[in-house]
Amino acid sequence: MATKKAVRTSASTISGIDYPIPEVLDDKRQLNEFAQTNSGKKIVCVQGLGFVGAVMSLVVANSPAAQYAVIGVELPNESSYWKVCSINTGTFPIASSDPSVEQLYQSTQRRKNFYATCDTHAYSLADIVVIDVNLDVQKKHGKQKRLNDFEVDLTGFKRALESIASVCKEDVLLIVETTVPPGTCEKVAKPLFDKAFERRGLSKRYQLGYSYERVMPGPHYVNSIRNFYRVYAGIDEQSAKATEVFLRTIIRTDEYPLTRLHSTTACEISKVLENSFRAMNIAFIQEWTEFAHRAHVNLFEIVEAIRMRPTHKNIMLPGLGVGGYCLTKDPLLASWSSQNFFLGTALAQSEAAVTINDQMPLFSYNEFSKALNGKLSRKKVLLLGVSYLRNIGDTRQTPVELLYTMLKKGGCTVTLHDPYVAYWQEQQCSVHTRFEEVCKGSYDVVVFCTAHSHYTESVVLRDWLSSAQPMLLFDSNAVLNEDAIKIYGRRHRILVIGRGDIHS
Amino acid sequence: MATKKAVRTSASTISGIDYPIPEVLDDKRQLNEFAQTNSGKKIVCVQGLGFVGAVMSLVVANSPAAQYAVIGVELPNESSYWKVCSINTGTFPIASSDPSVEQLYQSTQRRKNFYATCDTHAYSLADIVVIDVNLDVQKKHGKQKRLNDFEVDLTGFKRALESIASVCKEDVLLIVETTVPPGTCEKVAKPLFDKAFERRGLSKRYQLGYSYERVMPGPHYVNSIRNFYRVYAGIDEQSAKATEVFLRTIIRTDEYPLTRLHSTTACEISKVLENSFRAMNIAFIQEWTEFAHRAHVNLFEIVEAIRMRPTHKNIMLPGLGVGGYCLTKDPLLASWSSQNFFLGTALAQSEAAVTINDQMPLFSYNEFSKALNGKLSRKKVLLLGVSYLRNIGDTRQTPVELLYTMLKKGGCTVTLHDPYVAYWQEQQCSVHTRFEEVCKGSYDVVVFCTAHSHYTESVVLRDWLSSAQPMLLFDSNAVLNEDAIKIYGRRHRILVIGRGDIHS
Repeated sequence: MATKKAVRTSASTISGIDYPIPEVLDDKRQLNEFAQTNSGKKIVCVQGLGFVGAVMSLVVANSPAAQYAVIGVELPNESSYWKVCSINTGTFPIASSDPSVEQLYQSTQRRKNFYATCDTHAYSLADIVVIDVNLDVQKKHGKQKRLNDFEVDLTGFKRALESIASVCKEDVLLIVETTVPPGTCEKVAKPLFDKAFERRGLSKRYQLGYSYERVMPGPHYVNSIRNFYRVYAGIDEQSAKATEVFLRTIIRTDEYPLTRLHSTTACEISKVLENSFRAMNIAFIQEWTEFAHRAHVNLFEIVEAIRMRPTHKNIMLPGLGVGGYCLTKDPLLASWSSQNFFLGTALAQSEAAVTINDQMPLFSYNEFSKALNGKLSRKKVLLLGVSYLRNIGDTRQTPVELLYTMLKKGGCTVTLHDPYVAYWQEQQCSVHTRFEEVCKGSYDVVVFCTAHSHYTESVVLRDWLSSAQPMLLFDSNAVLNEDAIKIYGRRHRILVIGRGDIHS
Repeated sequence: MATKKAVRTSASTISGIDYPIPEVLDDKRQLNEFAQTNSGKKIVCVQGLGFVGAVMSLVVANSPAAQYAVIGVELPNESSYWKVCSINTGTFPIASSDPSVEQLYQSTQRRKNFYATCDTHAYSLADIVVIDVNLDVQKKHGKQKRLNDFEVDLTGFKRALESIASVCKEDVLLIVETTVPPGTCEKVAKPLFDKAFERRGLSKRYQLGYSYERVMPGPHYVNSIRNFYRVYAGIDEQSAKATEVFLRTIIRTDEYPLTRLHSTTACEISKVLENSFRAMNIAFIQEWTEFAHRAHVNLFEIVEAIRMRPTHKNIMLPGLGVGGYCLTKDPLLASWSSQNFFLGTALAQSEAAVTINDQMPLFSYNEFSKALNGKLSRKKVLLLGVSYLRNIGDTRQTPVELLYTMLKKGGCTVTLHDPYVAYWQEQQCSVHTRFEEVCKGSYDVVVFCTAHSHYTESVVLRDWLSSAQPMLLFDSNAVLNEDAIKIYGRRHRILVIGRGDIHS
């Protein structure tokens, strides 16, 4: 008799429902039925149902010419399996402030052209596979989030490709959207598919393209795919052409023309370069933020003056730090590629940008500490915003985390609020979402971390601050505008990161 | 009997005339006469007749309301005295591709409202003094232009201010345009004027403003003053107001509104920050240029793709290096100020940008050397362009210098050509200006350094390259466009810095 194993489950972060993960993943019957229902349509598999893949699936399934049926494929693990169940039972796995997301999902439900599965049999049915899996960098942080070292492990990515290569059609079109170390398509993906096709006795008629997304969750989520410029390339002319034809069916290329680059490596570099450009410019302005504090000047008015010049429009603003999945790692993917794929040196400036940005919240912490003369113990702090992005509940790599852990370590009692985050995954703690719940308490300091419109436009917040006992308002991320500073400044002490002209 | 001294002279770089520098500098009579001739007009002294001060003088003297008479003041030394003589004898001391420069100068000659002098008596007549003197950074370079250390010496700048402070009117308006270490107006200029006024028994009624220029020599020289955004500040409200009133009389502020900052220090930071932003972004792209060469991709097409995004428009292009007076030193002025005026740390990233940019031409040299398998000895090289800027004859800090000296050191025989530079001051050598003179020779390599339209559009060059023996065309600074590469590539070997996809 077999011993009874504990059943693994996967909990939905949307509904809370806990789905047991089946031992055996045979979804062949349903997949074949889905294909039959959608006969006449091309089958597109989207591998990975994260922030990119999930909405990419909706955009493909809702292409203007309605020529696609989409199968989303995920891994059957604790953090992802629920997405498959959720999609197949009427609930899209991402809550978004963009109403188009729900509209597109409902339309796929009516058309019955979107299905999710964990069974890699799906790839055998696919005419096109879009690869949207994660490819992480393993950062090794020392004390105070100092980046000591990092590693890129391609094992998971290769396994994902292998699951396609071992069953896919001979003439499948593969489009990689995952951000990868430049060179990956040529040096990893192509050899892997070549080898699998040899093993399977197939001629190498597959096509392989690279086209990176510029997805921005939030109110323009769908538009950031459909209505935005795209760059692409193929490992050969035919692959590039096929990738282009596919992109033309889902993107408004009349308004947002495509750009073809001459190699997949060029296209992969393009992606990490554009994010490194941002990361580096943020790191650069941090140096000037610190200078502005020493020189007692307002860096915001300076940056505004400089941005009058068209050649200087992209100069960044002071802030708390850098969050999210891309800017915090993409420069490292490039540096890793330079060293491991092209036997060159590290990209020193790009690496330094990540190092500086990872530690940036320490400056806010130190200014906070200075403002309280170093007396943090038992200070009651209300921290507003844990997401790294305005009006979005995304806590991945949020810079708020370092500030929060430092405040706690310093002895502060921290109350958390974010209208978009009920549970802070990375810190495993719950967060107040209703401001009415937190404004009853009394605090020594209110820390503004995220420029949610709830904080910039809330009447409840304004009324509370206008009658509350005098506190320190510590704005770490340019949340308060000039008017707010003037009004609140009558009652409270104010300190704004980047405004060295406000003395605390 | 006095011993006879050798007479010092100052040679015009325009006419070649050698002016003897007088021992005694008494110009009082002429100055007083000039003031009388222009009675009813405000007297504006412009201190320093370099690239900024000379043309600034013209713009002020040609203000729409014709309310100013301008006295340009220079030092009586070898490199500057000739400018004074030249201005007073009918030749403007700067040759420019902008025809407005000559037009404005001729208009001052007709109106008789522009005079030049070395006598500081001029400042005693001035209602307004505009300070446009140089303030240099003393860089200490090691081997291969490695920046080991630097120093900022304010002695000359203070002496310039002192020459004004000791004779100026009690209610003079002083406007500093010189790029200075941030904090200079408050920590150096103000104390200096306060002390001089105390000594002279005057009440401190002077006004002191800071407003930096964004002058760009070349075809839009005059417009870069008249028709461009300005930032300004004053040491107090009255000074700021007076500076604003003056700027409104010479700049088209209806189209290019002024921006007032809250302190002169903020305004001084604004200037060095905008140049540091550029310097840093150039240094950043150099890292990716080297990566692109290793990965054999064309960085130009990548940057073009990235610039489609409005948030990424300012990403820079690959090139030979950084030249000119500003970007090569302004980040260091900021770092010096941080350490010396505000007792803080160095601005590490901004300093690093200068270090990287100073050495950037070495990459071109190394690629050049690689293309010739290291065999440089006795190679005949035609180097096109020594100016650092397109269509302008400006060799200050030109990156061509390091490449040129390395090529010579490597044993190459280098022929120089630049349509805008007959004599290379820094290298003390003459340069061919007529292409017909150099294309008779035979060469192993043609090096493109400056994107003068003479090189991009010249029929003579095109014809010569279409019939010359096969050579290596080495484009270090994006001079050749796609068409040129295609056409010349049929005959010659081509290598372009930033285009790692062209194998040599």
